[in-house]
Amino acid sequence: MERRYRLVVSCPDRVGIVAMVSNFISSHGGSIAEANQHSDAGAGWFFMRYEIQASTMPFSLEQLREAFRPIAQSFNMEWSLTDSNKPKRVVLMASREAHCLSDLLYRYHSNELDCEIPCVISNHDDLRSMVEWHGIPYHHVPVNPESKAESFIKVQELIEQSEADAIVLARYMQIIPPVLCERYPNRIINIHHSFLPSFVGAKPYHQAMERGVKLIGATCHYVTQELDAGPIIEQDVIRVSHRDRVEDMVRLGRDVEKTVLARGLRWHLEDRVLVHGNKTVVFN
Amino acid sequence: MERRYRLVVSCPDRVGIVAMVSNFISSHGGSIAEANQHSDAGAGWFFMRYEIQASTMPFSLEQLREAFRPIAQSFNMEWSLTDSNKPKRVVLMASREAHCLSDLLYRYHSNELDCEIPCVISNHDDLRSMVEWHGIPYHHVPVNPESKAESFIKVQELIEQSEADAIVLARYMQIIPPVLCERYPNRIINIHHSFLPSFVGAKPYHQAMERGVKLIGATCHYVTQELDAGPIIEQDVIRVSHRDRVEDMVRLGRDVEKTVLARGLRWHLEDRVLVHGNKTVVFN
Amino acid sequence: MERRYRLVVSCPDRVGIVAMVSNFISSHGGSIAEANQHSDAGAGWFFMRYEIQASTMPFSLEQLREAFRPIAQSFNMEWSLTDSNKPKRVVLMASREAHCLSDLLYRYHSNELDCEIPCVISNHDDLRSMVEWHGIPYHHVPVNPESKAESFIKVQELIEQSEADAIVLARYMQIIPPVLCERYPNRIINIHHSFLPSFVGAKPYHQAMERGVKLIGATCHYVTQELDAGPIIEQDVIRVSHRDRVEDMVRLGRDVEKTVLARGLRWHLEDRVLVHGNKTVVFN
Amino acid sequence: MERRYRLVVSCPDRVGIVAMVSNFISSHGGSIAEANQHSDAGAGWFFMRYEIQASTMPFSLEQLREAFRPIAQSFNMEWSLTDSNKPKRVVLMASREAHCLSDLLYRYHSNELDCEIPCVISNHDDLRSMVEWHGIPYHHVPVNPESKAESFIKVQELIEQSEADAIVLARYMQIIPPVLCERYPNRIINIHHSFLPSFVGAKPYHQAMERGVKLIGATCHYVTQELDAGPIIEQDVIRVSHRDRVEDMVRLGRDVEKTVLARGLRWHLEDRVLVHGNKTVVFN
Repeated sequence: MERRYRLVVSCPDRVGIVAMVSNFISSHGGSIAEANQHSDAGAGWFFMRYEIQASTMPFSLEQLREAFRPIAQSFNMEWSLTDSNKPKRVVLMASREAHCLSDLLYRYHSNELDCEIPCVISNHDDLRSMVEWHGIPYHHVPVNPESKAESFIKVQELIEQSEADAIVLARYMQIIPPVLCERYPNRIINIHHSFLPSFVGAKPYHQAMERGVKLIGATCHYVTQELDAGPIIEQDVIRVSHRDRVEDMVRLGRDVEKTVLARGLRWHLEDRVLVHGNKTVVFN
Repeated sequence: MERRYRLVVSCPDRVGIVAMVSNFISSHGGSIAEANQHSDAGAGWFFMRYEIQASTMPFSLEQLREAFRPIAQSFNMEWSLTDSNKPKRVVLMASREAHCLSDLLYRYHSNELDCEIPCVISNHDDLRSMVEWHGIPYHHVPVNPESKAESFIKVQELIEQSEADAIVLARYMQIIPPVLCERYPNRIINIHHSFLPSFVGAKPYHQAMERGVKLIGATCHYVTQELDAGPIIEQDVIRVSHRDRVEDMVRLGRDVEKTVLARGLRWHLEDRVLVHGNKTVVFN
Repeated sequence: MERRYRLVVSCPDRVGIVAMVSNFISSHGGSIAEANQHSDAGAGWFFMRYEIQASTMPFSLEQLREAFRPIAQSFNMEWSLTDSNKPKRVVLMASREAHCLSDLLYRYHSNELDCEIPCVISNHDDLRSMVEWHGIPYHHVPVNPESKAESFIKVQELIEQSEADAIVLARYMQIIPPVLCERYPNRIINIHHSFLPSFVGAKPYHQAMERGVKLIGATCHYVTQELDAGPIIEQDVIRVSHRDRVEDMVRLGRDVEKTVLARGLRWHLEDRVLVHGNKTVVFN
Repeated sequence: MERRYRLVVSCPDRVGIVAMVSNFISSHGGSIAEANQHSDAGAGWFFMRYEIQASTMPFSLEQLREAFRPIAQSFNMEWSLTDSNKPKRVVLMASREAHCLSDLLYRYHSNELDCEIPCVISNHDDLRSMVEWHGIPYHHVPVNPESKAESFIKVQELIEQSEADAIVLARYMQIIPPVLCERYPNRIINIHHSFLPSFVGAKPYHQAMERGVKLIGATCHYVTQELDAGPIIEQDVIRVSHRDRVEDMVRLGRDVEKTVLARGLRWHLEDRVLVHGNKTVVFN
């Protein structure tokens, strides 16, 4: 894949943003490989994402940032500029269930996910061998009710040492403490095994069975302090019937969980997910 | 379509039910055109549905009922026996939104729904012309907060006069009083414009927009006294994105609502929906 | 809905197109309500579609065309500029099957489709009453093998008199003669009742049954001289099983056909479908 | 899971089959845990599958076979009787693409697939390490045009030595010689990366791109001598758009391929797939 700069912007909507930005790029000879924009008329907010062929710009990433800064300031933009040559560093966290972790590791291994995985952190030791086969360090940090705070200090240290850009909870099954949520806003990605907002919290497949729903789902979202209530990145569902017991739902749900998480993570890695309020714009 | 008897049974599970029933049928030369059975191991309950070619049985429907009664009693069955030649009588109730009503009328008109529609009842007069074009009587029964009880006495009279087997709330938008719910258990079918149990109650698309979900849905269920909490017959979803405003969700949702309602009603008309507790077995 | 101008462009890809166009619009104070662009790197072709709030531009549609023409010429653009206040005129053609026609008429009637329907043309008289109830003229033009050419001369006259922008074959079931295909390139929209390129030609559900597929589908496409081979606008599928006979497939397929056709037509009416070679870009 | 006997039957349809079989089972005290039956009126053929709780029958599997044989003969049944305690032996065949193989190995490893995998055979050596990590022997049997016959003699030897009940072509990418197809009728399972019958043969995603379809799919089918034309077990699709290049289709398609193959294999392992003519009945 050719090297690209990714410019992601959100700001109050007004006339001339696209003209200003596209003019800036083309005046330097930049070639736009992909462009997305969205106006949220209700919120009065504008979102855009450009992929620019790096070779067509006479700038390094840092120089481009400098050159763009005045435009960003004049439009009160929240913005980021990233380089497709610098893959994000993603710490994976798991518990005992292997399906999401295994799926992400396979995608990483086959170069489908453009990231580095500095380590996997788990509160159990079960998945060590699988992770280490991929050449990735595995940290076992047990989490007990009586020492949960200390465990998460350890977890945070590992994340910091990893210089993580993102943390993925691949069925981690522990509630992330508020301090960590705040430290990594819109950078901790969770997969919840229900079609949110249905069945928040524990044992969603049991809840689904109890209610007698005809479809079950999974939701990939950013983690906030409120449980299972953060901005939704992606969701999908699969059909179930009266023949399916809870264990069938668990099995069927696994396939949805892993594809939904993989899609959400992919879009995050490619800077396609913009958060505004508690909602996302996904330029996919 | 050849004439068929439909035998629908649910009872405590134990050895020999299928043998007894199928033996009963075959010993009289009956040919089973379609058979479904289900054991719910958790509930210890057994469900079955047989379609028998009427011409192969030496019985009228009433005679067959008599002949089968001893078997039913010995297994403590809840059961029904219906005749495909006697289509159910369905009263449709609507408000101002035409899409579900229009869709059901079209399916009725084109013989896709095997039922009779003695009348349509609405709290508004808007849809009269469309209904009358189909040759179906239209009753306008306004519902005001101050006279709601009287309105529903009128509604119930119309339903009784229609000798209705089922009532379909095709986006009727009024809460059915408990007395009517009790009078027609598992015979009032509603379409709710969300993927229940998410977004119970009013304005579910607004709730969906607020939460930022990536799929919206619709749920066809039997009406019970608890709002939007009755046994679910069918559900489906459609994808939405950040580009969709509430009015887009409303538009996209309409297509899901009408197909989900039509499927649920079809299965009900064919005696394919068995209720146990607050859940359904759907032999489709 | 506020009035909008829709600018749709396709041209050889090169640096500066977006800058030039967006600059043109913003320099006149124009506010872009929706923007889509796409670069097809393989074909070296660029596509864009802008919705501009008409009230923010100091131009009538014709003046805007004049002002934009030099830009269009300098980039060798194929382009169109339309006014959301001028709904397209759509002639519907049907045969005996009512489902697609009925669905489109309902959507038209409920203002879901932004178009005018000057008339319906059919080779049978069956659907006259339904059409006339909507206040739309119905032309019965029988098509017999021995006089097919004359029939289509009559059809073409009716289309011309209708000043049709688009013709929709809502299960018309007759092959359109080449002369008509050429007369209305990318303006005749067909719904084919299979997931093309599977099951081209007659009786696709029978072909699907024969092959034992597990999903059936429908395809909305522009009509070209080669049967069922024109640019595809939209497709969808529905699951079937061994229990479904051909008549079940026909019934289940109808729901897919009508939603796929309605979606395709909607996008066409909103100038969201751009054709390049035998493929479409759909900015939906 | 409790031990179960699985009785799978197909035979000419006539009155009394279910009564005879269910009577046979219940007269010995057998408890039916799951039952499915289907009459294909067009073909005049009857299909059934019973899961019987082994502990409720006074028979070993072999004794049950003996006891059932007279019934089978009197109805001209094709039938099989298997024991859920004896998992099938499945030889996996792969080439260089890891996704299907990796997915099946994960499901095997996590006990989601009830089978034994005596070995993996590949015409390349790339996936050896992954397979051997699972403790499964890996046989590299190169296939060259000039020595293809010898290679497949070697392949067949390995399959025979493995006492394989089924062979899964997990993107094996080589055409299976007729002799092997005949040796294992309805026991070689392939995943084809298109929605058959569209895009038979090589490079289906390129064909899909060329045609401009809006959904791509995958098909799990039994291998017969005619390429990609055997009985279809399962299919599914995923949406694509003008933004997706061939490499995106390949990536998106992988997720469909692996879930479709895993579903098809699961059903095969559970004796849920009955073949009649070139079509399947799938009791799932």
